[in-house]
Amino acid sequence: MIESTEKTVDYSSPAYLDLLDKYWRAANYLSVGQIYLKDNPLLDRPLKPEDVKVHPIGHWGTIAGQNFIYAHLNRIINKYDLSMFYIEGPGHGGQVMVSNSYLDGSYSEIYPSVSQDKEGMKRLFKQFSWPGGVASHAAPETPGSIHEGGELGYSISHATGAILDNPDVIAAVVVGDGEAETGPLAASWHSARFINPIHDGAVLPILYVNGFKISNPSIFSRTSDQDIAKYFESLGWEPFFVEGHEPKKVHELMAKAMDAVVEKIKSIQKNARENEDVSQPRWPMIVFRSPKGWTGPKTWDDKPIENSFRAHQIPIPVDRNHMEHADQLVNWLKSYQPEQLFDANGVLQAEISEITPKGDQRMAANPIANGGINPRELRLPNFRDYALAIKEHGKQVAQDMSVFSTYARDIIVSNPDNFRVFGPDETASNRLTALFEVTDRQWLGDVYEPRDEFVAPQGRLLDTQLSEHQAEGWLEGYTLTGRHGFFASYEAFLRVVDSMLTQHFKWLRKSSELSWRSSYPSLNLISSSTVFQQDHNGYSHQDPGLLSHLAEKKHEFIREYLPADANTLLAVANKIFKSHDKINLVVASKHPRQQWFSIDEAADMVDSGLRIIDWASTDQGTETDIVLASAGTEPTLESLAAIQLLHQAFPEMKIRFVNVVDLLKLKTPKKSAHGLSDAEFDHYFTKNKPVLFAFHGYEDLIEDLFFGRHNTNLTVHGYRENGDITTPFDMRVLNQLDRFHLAKEAIMQQPQYAEKGAAFIQKMDDMIAKHNHFIREEGMDLPEVTNWTWQPLN
Amino acid sequence: MIESTEKTVDYSSPAYLDLLDKYWRAANYLSVGQIYLKDNPLLDRPLKPEDVKVHPIGHWGTIAGQNFIYAHLNRIINKYDLSMFYIEGPGHGGQVMVSNSYLDGSYSEIYPSVSQDKEGMKRLFKQFSWPGGVASHAAPETPGSIHEGGELGYSISHATGAILDNPDVIAAVVVGDGEAETGPLAASWHSARFINPIHDGAVLPILYVNGFKISNPSIFSRTSDQDIAKYFESLGWEPFFVEGHEPKKVHELMAKAMDAVVEKIKSIQKNARENEDVSQPRWPMIVFRSPKGWTGPKTWDDKPIENSFRAHQIPIPVDRNHMEHADQLVNWLKSYQPEQLFDANGVLQAEISEITPKGDQRMAANPIANGGINPRELRLPNFRDYALAIKEHGKQVAQDMSVFSTYARDIIVSNPDNFRVFGPDETASNRLTALFEVTDRQWLGDVYEPRDEFVAPQGRLLDTQLSEHQAEGWLEGYTLTGRHGFFASYEAFLRVVDSMLTQHFKWLRKSSELSWRSSYPSLNLISSSTVFQQDHNGYSHQDPGLLSHLAEKKHEFIREYLPADANTLLAVANKIFKSHDKINLVVASKHPRQQWFSIDEAADMVDSGLRIIDWASTDQGTETDIVLASAGTEPTLESLAAIQLLHQAFPEMKIRFVNVVDLLKLKTPKKSAHGLSDAEFDHYFTKNKPVLFAFHGYEDLIEDLFFGRHNTNLTVHGYRENGDITTPFDMRVLNQLDRFHLAKEAIMQQPQYAEKGAAFIQKMDDMIAKHNHFIREEGMDLPEVTNWTWQPLN
Repeated sequence: MIESTEKTVDYSSPAYLDLLDKYWRAANYLSVGQIYLKDNPLLDRPLKPEDVKVHPIGHWGTIAGQNFIYAHLNRIINKYDLSMFYIEGPGHGGQVMVSNSYLDGSYSEIYPSVSQDKEGMKRLFKQFSWPGGVASHAAPETPGSIHEGGELGYSISHATGAILDNPDVIAAVVVGDGEAETGPLAASWHSARFINPIHDGAVLPILYVNGFKISNPSIFSRTSDQDIAKYFESLGWEPFFVEGHEPKKVHELMAKAMDAVVEKIKSIQKNARENEDVSQPRWPMIVFRSPKGWTGPKTWDDKPIENSFRAHQIPIPVDRNHMEHADQLVNWLKSYQPEQLFDANGVLQAEISEITPKGDQRMAANPIANGGINPRELRLPNFRDYALAIKEHGKQVAQDMSVFSTYARDIIVSNPDNFRVFGPDETASNRLTALFEVTDRQWLGDVYEPRDEFVAPQGRLLDTQLSEHQAEGWLEGYTLTGRHGFFASYEAFLRVVDSMLTQHFKWLRKSSELSWRSSYPSLNLISSSTVFQQDHNGYSHQDPGLLSHLAEKKHEFIREYLPADANTLLAVANKIFKSHDKINLVVASKHPRQQWFSIDEAADMVDSGLRIIDWASTDQGTETDIVLASAGTEPTLESLAAIQLLHQAFPEMKIRFVNVVDLLKLKTPKKSAHGLSDAEFDHYFTKNKPVLFAFHGYEDLIEDLFFGRHNTNLTVHGYRENGDITTPFDMRVLNQLDRFHLAKEAIMQQPQYAEKGAAFIQKMDDMIAKHNHFIREEGMDLPEVTNWTWQPLN
Repeated sequence: MIESTEKTVDYSSPAYLDLLDKYWRAANYLSVGQIYLKDNPLLDRPLKPEDVKVHPIGHWGTIAGQNFIYAHLNRIINKYDLSMFYIEGPGHGGQVMVSNSYLDGSYSEIYPSVSQDKEGMKRLFKQFSWPGGVASHAAPETPGSIHEGGELGYSISHATGAILDNPDVIAAVVVGDGEAETGPLAASWHSARFINPIHDGAVLPILYVNGFKISNPSIFSRTSDQDIAKYFESLGWEPFFVEGHEPKKVHELMAKAMDAVVEKIKSIQKNARENEDVSQPRWPMIVFRSPKGWTGPKTWDDKPIENSFRAHQIPIPVDRNHMEHADQLVNWLKSYQPEQLFDANGVLQAEISEITPKGDQRMAANPIANGGINPRELRLPNFRDYALAIKEHGKQVAQDMSVFSTYARDIIVSNPDNFRVFGPDETASNRLTALFEVTDRQWLGDVYEPRDEFVAPQGRLLDTQLSEHQAEGWLEGYTLTGRHGFFASYEAFLRVVDSMLTQHFKWLRKSSELSWRSSYPSLNLISSSTVFQQDHNGYSHQDPGLLSHLAEKKHEFIREYLPADANTLLAVANKIFKSHDKINLVVASKHPRQQWFSIDEAADMVDSGLRIIDWASTDQGTETDIVLASAGTEPTLESLAAIQLLHQAFPEMKIRFVNVVDLLKLKTPKKSAHGLSDAEFDHYFTKNKPVLFAFHGYEDLIEDLFFGRHNTNLTVHGYRENGDITTPFDMRVLNQLDRFHLAKEAIMQQPQYAEKGAAFIQKMDDMIAKHNHFIREEGMDLPEVTNWTWQPLN
């Protein structure tokens, strides 16, 4: 319907801009109403105390400016027939997306009780910042949002992730001037270096400089246009400035700037697509200066409100129990002239309604924001085709991540437009080298081969910026728009994005409660270069605590996998790439390690989460003396070596070995439906036999997983925060996670061996002493450790 | 001794630069030697396999360029008589600081066995990247360092923190071009906005663009000088460019640039100090382009090494078992002409030695890097002077953070030059408003009052950038140089710096093992705007998990305090500001809350860590039926209300109430010397009576603290990850941490009340239902909750 009128509409005419202004005033009216009112939405009768909320809550400072931007984005959607959606970077001002989607009808389609009439407007007002109602920032409940506005800094990263492989979409991103001071946001401007103008869409940043953050001025507000221009030009953007506070003038300026940026984006894309020109473009953006609290109260108590930090939250103190200044609230609301905007029944005037985009072109209804445009499951190769043939347990040595990378390579081949790999320049280091056989690292900058390698304007890898924040933010944006991928990182430095993971988990959780939101492909994290081997690094690179961090969250949305070899990693990968609505953390080794499990054994273990390993157990058909359990590559290797030491010395000892892959299977069913029942738990771990658990991470986590189970006869050997730059085996010794400490501990946990075991314990202590001496002198591990191989138990 | 020769030395003469070049070659020689050799350090006999390490480990790419910078910094220290120290931003290349401090003698003063002769050089080589030896990046073991080079992004923040209130010091900071792509580093350039040229020292950034990160090109290396200049100019810096690969030419260019930047710094400071000119200066910096792997092997296997990503780690594959190419290693080492640099006994030639700075002017010996220049304890006012008089428990309502801020205000007054407060623009929000009575927020930008408030070029508050990374990094730099302060933040968003806290903990831990390092004032974190009240925010702002994160680390260095009222917060504050070598996490309420404890009671509670509250217990002299325990403001309030409900209904019930302030006192002594013995633990919690623990954070943490204690008859009600934008009491109900859920749980945990308690449980359920209805309808809490006050137990 836009098309038919396109020729006749003059989008820059005073008449059109006047309609736009009305639309804007309507959005402002609704936004203020949401803060204060719970009834009498049209003010068609005098305001009474019971019309006003007891405790008005919300943020005003950012609202009018963002509504202004939103209105002008609507204008260019109509004018240029765009597919565009909105990312609200500033932390607060949730009313913006709510008010605008209410005005264009998309809100009421999702929440029919909030109808486009007086009754619906009343509900709209009341629910805002109301217990169980609508959050004061963009959130999963907000139509059109893929971006939680609570923790600041990720809007540009999310937008970039969203438009990768969506060549027809423009992400309009409002960046707050407070937000722009955060680290992640400052680094995210580099995204311009990585957007391919042929195959990806565009990001249109709108830096909204309203002057103040919470109670301080913002840095950009005290930076000259000249310096701001320099900043963005140097980062690959072309800024267009719009500044003012007189609506009529600013409408004209903004319309002009919006036209310019869209035409620029279109011309960049046209040139690139027609001429296969993949040189890095200078993408346009807008810098918009307008006062904080624009159109609101000018002063209060003789202090400025508009254009001051004081406009941040509630500018006028009016509530149900404080109506002394209610007239000022009414004046403010009436300054938008609601009677010109809504009819007596609260319906938006038809002439205004006409200029909102329609159908899927409404930003809140763009399918990208609700699961993506054409979301598809991955076409996964059969993971068994990549398996190692395990003829003898532990005979073969391989690098788990290298094996996995052959599988990931073929996922890329089979899914050329909806699977990507992210990271902070660690793809090669993490042994994902098979990926380079079929793709490159995407990077629009100059390339100088042979000094560079596998860098190109198009590629399925985005590990070209050294920033965990960017890698994580891009992947979040990519999966929240229905695509798949993983982020591979050094284990310790995944913690740089601890809080981003929390926010993403919250998004998944709240979204799952909303029937109208699609499910999302899982966010997959591969944690490699783990604490237990840091050849080139040291203590600073050692921290397995992400396992504990994520385990605290609601378990419906979290999975943690610790595959102990390549085949198990393949089976895990097959599972996570099929899963939805999870954060999957996979801790995987990249170094040469012995291989244990056949692909059938591995697949079964991943299905059930854990498994009694019969070929490493001696308790078949009898009562178990002790359970050795492990989770993780080195813990499994050392547990097996300890079992062999124990079996050789005490052939009569009845040992059970349990390997745990899906760690949160151990959680009590009281806290997680995913957890083993008590009966199942007892089946693996017995009700009371000593359990010696060798664990990759901090011991607290395993202790907590056993808390409340029948069997708490548990000793854990995990990462004990002892680290150094040293050999992989010495790292285990330092943390008492090596075979000698484990075997010694196994004896000490079995009182029946008090006497007979003393000599064995002494022998273990001697081996540890021998190791300690040798490592300091020779700088390498004992030959008896290096050359050790598994011998079948007889 | 510099002074006496000053007039006669021409620091720019070819002769001087030739000496500087020799010094540089010596540093390079030592740096390569450290990677490969463990004997034959002077190559004065043919290289044998046993001279070479089995597994050479380290990073080469950054070394020669950094050694070059270091040499030139030495030059300007001499020329201008500077107090300067070195921060090594790039992750690797630990040899840089080691080699240079070895050359100037400071290394051997600290580590006498690594003497300045052939034997010492042999030890120097062997220990590098050797088990138990020297890390491959700057670390606590590295003399002169206050900065761990492992996790990237914090070098400028650390440097800025260090030079605050140190007007005579210049921090020379090498920023890697990989590091410069991280978020925290990108935001930290804004530090230029906050350095006061009169009262603070200077930061001299040297962006070292060697072209590559791990296996990708760096962004800055493919950015033109023009764009780089724009970038830094816009951020408040004046860049000086130095580029080249021919040493002689680059020496001349670098000497000139170094002179220019020092003279510029001096002139800025002179002008500011003489004219009290506090307008924001444009601080000078250097952008240095030289090839990665400079002076090393040019190619290998027909692929470029120098000036390629391939120079990142070990450029030539030579080790004890692979000596085929040993001649190339020898050629490389001999290319530095060691015979010109060291005498036959390995002593640096006197003419070279003469040009190194002497005494404390050696960068590795600058006292700032080892506990600070003139470190002093805080002069603390008596915290009791700020206490609330508690006449009746719970009658008075106050805001804990407001009360604390009066105490903090006077700490500022008494310690005008070594105490600062940091945060991400949350000082006012966190109710630290009393601070504004005596100081301002430091900010060198324009100030427009009355639109701005409490912003000035000098002030003890640095909350003027919205960046947790900056606040945390500045505080780290400030305390690592012997000063005091705290970082106050919203609870949820402290997690943005999870990994920085880990790195700082590691620094404290490793430093504590080094006798030559001073102890550090503690790093104090005040977590306010907690999960349990988020009026203006919602679920996104809710996460108490920092408690669990830090509790996993070695407890010697971590303390966690949960004061339940203002007096307890004062006693905690008094304790943390006296403490050393800790990360202190304080979770404190900022909202109006009932006040419980007299200052004596509070002080005692903080001394012992926890306390049986006799006035809220009914088990005196009898056997306890149930222990109610709490940690945190809302848990304490709700526990007390629950006790009253229980006591009214069941006056015969013997209740004990325990308030826990110092949470890690609960840790088992097996893991922490700070923890209560089992006997002490039983004294508080009994051996087997039901314990109902109301906790501010995630329940897993309390469960783990009880794991292995006699009494595991524990039920925890903590933060259950149920959140919303809602009232503070409803938040407790959502998480079942309210009085009704607690009282009900207390009955359910006592089997003897199975029958008699049924009606009570029904009553509690009715109250919960009543609340749930009321809150959704009225948007506020039940009057019986709002108006509740504590009645003494009879």
